[in-house]
Amino acid sequence: MLTKPRAVVLVSGGLDSATTLAIAKDQGYQCFALSFDYGQRHVSELEAAGRVADSMGVVEHKTIHLGLGDIGGSALTEEAIDVPKDGVESNVIPVTYVPARNTVFLSLALGWAEVLGAQDIFIGVNAVDYSGYPDCRPEFIAQFEKLANLATKVGVEGSDWHIHAPLIELSKADIILRGTELGVDYSQTVSCYEADIKGRACGVCDSCRLRAEGFASCNVQDPTIYK
Amino acid sequence: MLTKPRAVVLVSGGLDSATTLAIAKDQGYQCFALSFDYGQRHVSELEAAGRVADSMGVVEHKTIHLGLGDIGGSALTEEAIDVPKDGVESNVIPVTYVPARNTVFLSLALGWAEVLGAQDIFIGVNAVDYSGYPDCRPEFIAQFEKLANLATKVGVEGSDWHIHAPLIELSKADIILRGTELGVDYSQTVSCYEADIKGRACGVCDSCRLRAEGFASCNVQDPTIYK
Repeated sequence: MLTKPRAVVLVSGGLDSATTLAIAKDQGYQCFALSFDYGQRHVSELEAAGRVADSMGVVEHKTIHLGLGDIGGSALTEEAIDVPKDGVESNVIPVTYVPARNTVFLSLALGWAEVLGAQDIFIGVNAVDYSGYPDCRPEFIAQFEKLANLATKVGVEGSDWHIHAPLIELSKADIILRGTELGVDYSQTVSCYEADIKGRACGVCDSCRLRAEGFASCNVQDPTIYK
Repeated sequence: MLTKPRAVVLVSGGLDSATTLAIAKDQGYQCFALSFDYGQRHVSELEAAGRVADSMGVVEHKTIHLGLGDIGGSALTEEAIDVPKDGVESNVIPVTYVPARNTVFLSLALGWAEVLGAQDIFIGVNAVDYSGYPDCRPEFIAQFEKLANLATKVGVEGSDWHIHAPLIELSKADIILRGTELGVDYSQTVSCYEADIKGRACGVCDSCRLRAEGFASCNVQDPTIYK
């Protein structure tokens, strides 16, 4: 019997990364889930990440502590910056942008993957994020793949890295439909920027709004519990 | 009077990064020093980083805690892997290689730089490291610069990032000569992989050997204190 290839999957506890994990599993990978405790306001996400990883039978779930809060610069890590509730503007990078976040996350995933002998990394960036965050665009992902080949021992030895972003072209509704097809239990996930300790959502932040619109537009029942 | 441009400089406490900081300062940058507490065995390096940053008058010195030890895979972070003392072989990646280390360090420097409004990052990779570590090669640095332009808000808005690796083509002896010219006090630096709590070096590990050979070959007195 062939051994399944290993993959590191970034799991935040949100809807997108839960779907990404289900896709990686469906594609036949042994999944290693990676989360970050980076001083985000919504720590209930991390509990959700644990629930999602457990229920999908990952081989291991690792949470790395990371001092991104020390760096500041985002509404998601700094108390002084308000989380927006006025909708996402097109072509404007929102204040929830965390400087270099996906570069940092993918770098750490790269390090762990190299130790595990994996050469596949899954990240749940998508078309909705794409409108605002520079590090959610296809060209960023492609460039990081090139960097991985130059940055690592296995890359130098001639093996190629693959950075998978299976949601990148999908709308929120398409993501939910795909995940539902794969049996994702979205009641385990938390999307809200200001969820309470029990994971209950505010219903008014941009992330809540995008999630609710996604469920509504594909006629899947929204299992989100609001405060 | 024009304001000096800001730069983030990676400062480890070793000889190379101290020289890099002196070069950045000499080139007219306001320097922000960044160090990492990543579970390295030689924590005395971090104290050295503080001494070096202070004595060179940086605007701020930040140390980010980072769980690289959790990832493992290197003699520098895992107790179970012995630090080598048999000399550096050419074309072989040494066990002291920390998976994706410079990718992770540069990513975090990128995040902090973006918050600071800086677009220059200095890193002290050099020709000696180049022989073994994939992420110390010029092509890696060039690729990271491209990634930075795609990964960040300022990059997307059309400003270019510059990742400076001023030591990359220099031998250890050339680095020491350049630093001496710029007034670097090398007694403040620690290079040893197994330095004790006072920063005293073992004298036998590969890093000690490269340092000692560097001082010997350029006729500068070696201020290293051995155990």
